[in-house]
Amino acid sequence: MKEKILELLNKKHDYLSGDQISRHLGISRQGLWKHIQELKDLGYEIEAVPHLGYRLASAPDRLFDFEVSRSLHTKFIGKKIFYFDYLSSTMDLAMQKGMQGAPSGTLVLAEAQVRGRGRLGREWFSPKYKGIYLSLILRPDIAPASCPVLTLMSAVSICEAFKSLLHLEAQIKWPNDILVNHKKIAGILTEMNAEMDKVNFVVIGIGLNVNNDKKSLLPQATALKQELGQEVRRVVLLEEILRTLENNYFLLQEKGTEEIINKWRNFALTLGSRVKVDYQGKHIEGQAVDLDSDGALLIRKDSGLMQKISSGDVTTCR
Amino acid sequence: MKEKILELLNKKHDYLSGDQISRHLGISRQGLWKHIQELKDLGYEIEAVPHLGYRLASAPDRLFDFEVSRSLHTKFIGKKIFYFDYLSSTMDLAMQKGMQGAPSGTLVLAEAQVRGRGRLGREWFSPKYKGIYLSLILRPDIAPASCPVLTLMSAVSICEAFKSLLHLEAQIKWPNDILVNHKKIAGILTEMNAEMDKVNFVVIGIGLNVNNDKKSLLPQATALKQELGQEVRRVVLLEEILRTLENNYFLLQEKGTEEIINKWRNFALTLGSRVKVDYQGKHIEGQAVDLDSDGALLIRKDSGLMQKISSGDVTTCR
Repeated sequence: MKEKILELLNKKHDYLSGDQISRHLGISRQGLWKHIQELKDLGYEIEAVPHLGYRLASAPDRLFDFEVSRSLHTKFIGKKIFYFDYLSSTMDLAMQKGMQGAPSGTLVLAEAQVRGRGRLGREWFSPKYKGIYLSLILRPDIAPASCPVLTLMSAVSICEAFKSLLHLEAQIKWPNDILVNHKKIAGILTEMNAEMDKVNFVVIGIGLNVNNDKKSLLPQATALKQELGQEVRRVVLLEEILRTLENNYFLLQEKGTEEIINKWRNFALTLGSRVKVDYQGKHIEGQAVDLDSDGALLIRKDSGLMQKISSGDVTTCR
Repeated sequence: MKEKILELLNKKHDYLSGDQISRHLGISRQGLWKHIQELKDLGYEIEAVPHLGYRLASAPDRLFDFEVSRSLHTKFIGKKIFYFDYLSSTMDLAMQKGMQGAPSGTLVLAEAQVRGRGRLGREWFSPKYKGIYLSLILRPDIAPASCPVLTLMSAVSICEAFKSLLHLEAQIKWPNDILVNHKKIAGILTEMNAEMDKVNFVVIGIGLNVNNDKKSLLPQATALKQELGQEVRRVVLLEEILRTLENNYFLLQEKGTEEIINKWRNFALTLGSRVKVDYQGKHIEGQAVDLDSDGALLIRKDSGLMQKISSGDVTTCR
């Protein structure tokens, strides 16, 4: 009902009489008043003027499920949304929901995370209302070995959404960091629940710095607000990312991994550069040449030998 | 305390006076009496004779945590046991416990499963008190791609335990079926919770037919009772399997996968035979030649071409 009231108020930027709204939605004036109060409590500024009616003056920058789903227009992503003011970690909840049988496309959103998780047990700083912190459940019919391409697909989707919505160029540092002007702006964590030969489900986690203040960011990190010089409405960006993700997921299923890896190459900061890679307690240096079909990084060492790296931390030597 | 009382009663097959037991354990006669009652409720036959004391006449064939851990003598497996009269599935609970941070070696046991799970969503029939239904949490420091060897390791461990404890020969049908006289007696299901490049934890599930009646078994299935002509005390067998598993796990960590695959070859029913394999909606026929280092099955087709199969259902052509 909140969703429908907002729909009406959004359509007409003028005042709408309480009588009109109530009749249109088939609720009592009293019922409408209660919903309006609830929306006000959530941060919506709704002006009520005698003889004129209600007008939506402003909406808060929140990722409420009903806001996200209102103009999402996806086929399956976000049809089910779990929204929280804060969570320990969206990953933990999504893994649980996945085990309980939540359908593919189920989305977990939190306005803040107490213990946001990054790759290999690292932390993702998740201050309230400043970023987008989501975990998305997917149920692809693939083997565990094919899962890394989902991380690449997610990274590509974020870069494409930045470009189409914000006209902002971003790069990907293999395997899962999104950088703008060489500073980290987003990270992706992909976890799976799988049998040896079949994935039960995958959870893609995205942590994205949007309206973070400069002083709260580490020197090597940035946020969209810092790069664009203005705040970004998170719900609009989130919708764009989810739509792009869904399109790329369909592309992956239709055309296979090569299409995604081709797109990835266009955003790759790593390829062509001299890099240092720390992996499994070892490190090597060389030229980052390409990705193989599983999404592993191919390094040409100074000896000329090629080495395939499935997991590691890359530093670009500039 | 139950564990300690049983320990005392087991040591002396004679009567032990209540006074002696109470003093030894530092509890009151009243407290002892309550514990004895509880043990009787669990199915222990404890005779109490005035002026003589207590004597353990018989113990029920149950997998109580305190029974299993009493003579297990492992380094880490089974240090924490969750025991249930029945569960929907030991796998589901173990995956949950794993996510909540349960340590490596944590064991989930159920006397019956309502929806015991097999590979690829199949069911494992789990009648009460008849079989061993367990899920074991392990936290190996390996990549997801290296996980299938854990299934092979578990299959080897079951065969070795059958041999050492029951002098019974069993074979393994790739990848995870244990057969005795060409009939299925046990199945293994391995699931993981992993990042793309790091396993968080693995759960190994074992379903084993022990004292099943003949009429409750499918024609292609068997149970130890049928093969041996007598019932098997499940707790003793379970302990032997867990000890063997732990030894093989240490072997795997020290020596790598090759040692486990060598052992596996000795029990392999599949290798050297002509087989049909159904995989991913396709099927091929050929000679099962060997396992590769990841545990995949190598098939030589009639054309002479070798094919590597990571996942599928094998039928031996006899």
